[in-house]
Parts: sequence; structure tokens; C-alpha cells
Amino acid sequence: MIEAARTLIRERGYNATAFSDVLELSGAPRGSVYFHFPDGKAQLGMEVAAAHAEEQRAIIDRAAEGADSAAAMIESYVNMGRKGMLASDYSRGCGIAPLVTEGPTAASAEVAEASRAAFAGISARLAEHFVAFGLRKKPARELAEAVLAAVEGALITSRALGSPAPFDAARAVLVARAEALSPSAR
Amino acid sequence: MIEAARTLIRERGYNATAFSDVLELSGAPRGSVYFHFPDGKAQLGMEVAAAHAEEQRAIIDRAAEGADSAAAMIESYVNMGRKGMLASDYSRGCGIAPLVTEGPTAASAEVAEASRAAFAGISARLAEHFVAFGLRKKPARELAEAVLAAVEGALITSRALGSPAPFDAARAVLVARAEALSPSAR
Repeated sequence: MIEAARTLIRERGYNATAFSDVLELSGAPRGSVYFHFPDGKAQLGMEVAAAHAEEQRAIIDRAAEGADSAAAMIESYVNMGRKGMLASDYSRGCGIAPLVTEGPTAASAEVAEASRAAFAGISARLAEHFVAFGLRKKPARELAEAVLAAVEGALITSRALGSPAPFDAARAVLVARAEALSPSAR
Repeated sequence: MIEAARTLIRERGYNATAFSDVLELSGAPRGSVYFHFPDGKAQLGMEVAAAHAEEQRAIIDRAAEGADSAAAMIESYVNMGRKGMLASDYSRGCGIAPLVTEGPTAASAEVAEASRAAFAGISARLAEHFVAFGLRKKPARELAEAVLAAVEGALITSRALGSPAPFDAARAVLVARAEALSPSAR
């Protein structure tokens, strides 16, 4: 059910995702809503944010494994986002962003906290890898925030424009910055 | 009414913005909905996207007027976004993004086209100024796409994190790239 909810939230946002749609897509029985989500839809939103962040951290780890520098890792990570956007035919965005942009309606304080923790976890994982590739802590954290923001934004503008150009542009800017910050450039 | 709707869409998204809320915030009489928006809420969304893009283009022009380089212009533009985020106490995002992330529900094909045109117009205006500051056309267009994506993303992650750090990080990356692409660096 969380996976079905995540798909729907990525496609149509939080408010437009009803429990009935989640049940239909997941094939779960109606009673499971009350069993698994006794706190209602906010709980579903929180678990989707956590699941999306977990997937992103795994994707980041994969990008880092195959890379020999922060720049190569960023290139791979942005390319994965680009590939996902094309594969969905520009129909699927971030699983966390709608919980933020649909603001006070989505958010109970707990949903807001889940969104914060989700983004903070993705950014921290990016920064850890950048440090492992030799960047100093402060620039690594800054680069991580920039990668997260640029990819989040590309998920929106690429989708709206129906073009991968925002991913390509974000990649070029971020890779150049990573190269300038890397140990060999110092 | 468009200004009231834009405020609400920036705070709570598109689906959660009802005509009744727009009427309450704007103080407009009920009958004006049918008079000004005979095509209903999709029309309101389209006009909000256009109004938001127009405001952004004006902000970009102002940032360019006070700047002597693409880098200085980007610094000023990102700072304006950062200032707005802080002034709203992390409660207000982009007026176009919700029309995209709330996907097929918001979008009639016309709303999708209005979002596309809005982002394309902002990006084109950025690129025009970059060219006026001496960048070549292709890098100017790429830098514009990167600025748009990074600022869009910062509007989401800064809001979620309750921190201006994403704007600061995006600014550092974008300014460095603008400096590297500028005529004096060639």
C-alpha cells in the first residue's frame, strides 16, 4: 500500500490521492487501511516520505559505488533521475515534494517533520559520500544541498517543460562545482 | 482574485484552493467567479501560472538592472527568492509548481500548457540577460535552466527544512558556474 500511495502521490500529489485509489492500485482489502494506518492519511503521507527517502539514499549509494569522484557520482545520480523522468513520460515527480507544496492541508506537524527528515536524510547521505571522495565537510554539505535542490527543481521543471534539459543543465553546473571542490583541484 | 488565488496556491497547492477561499481572501463578490472565470478553476490555475511567471520575469529584470555580470545577477535573483522564503516564514512556495506536481488532477491539457509556458518564459528571460552579459547562447540557455531548476528546488527543500541553506548552496554553485562561463574567464 505504501508503494501504491507513493506512485499516486508522485503522479497527482497528496490531496488528490484518496485511500480508495490506494486500495484499488495495491489490491489490498479495505479493512487493511484501518489496520495499517490507524492514524489515517497523514500517516500514509509520512510513510511515503520515509520510503521515498530510503529509495533515494539507496540510489545515491549505487551512484557512489560506481564512481571514482564526487563529480562522477553526481553525474550518475542526476542521470538516474533523468532516466526515471523519461521512463514515466514526464508523469512522475518526487514523493516528498507534494507533502511540502500542499502545505498546511497535508501537514499536520508530523507530516511536515517527516518531509524535513526525508530531505535531511537524502542531503546527509550525499554529503557523506562527497566527504569520502575527499571533499571537506563544509563544502560537501553545501554541494549536497545544491544537488538536492537542483534535482528537486528539475523534477518539476523537466516535467512541466516535457524536456530533459533541466537535468542536463543541473548536471553540468553541479559536476563543474564538484570538480572545482575536489582534492585534485586544490 | 488572481492575486488571492496565487497566494493560496503558493501556500497550500492547487487542489486545496477552493473558489470559496479565494472569494474570502479577495473580498470579491460570489458572482464574480462566474463572470471572470467562466471556465472554472482550471482557468484560475492558468491565470495564476501566468501571473506568477510575469512577476518572476520582473524580478529577474530588476536583478539584471542592478548587476554588472551574469554572476552578480544570479546572486541577486537567488537572494530575492531566499528573502521571500524567510519573509513568509517558510510558508510560501512557487505559484506554478503545484499545478505540475498535482498532475493530472490539476491538469487539463490547458493547465499543463500554462505551466510549461510559465517556466519557459522565466527561463528565456534569464537566458536573454545572460547573453546581454556576454555569455554565448547555448551556455546561457543551459545556465538559465539550471538557475530555474535550482531555485524551484530550493523553494521546496528550504521550506521543508526550515532553513535558507538550500538557497545559499544553490547560489554558490550557480555563481561559480556563471563566473566560469563569463567572457572575462574565457
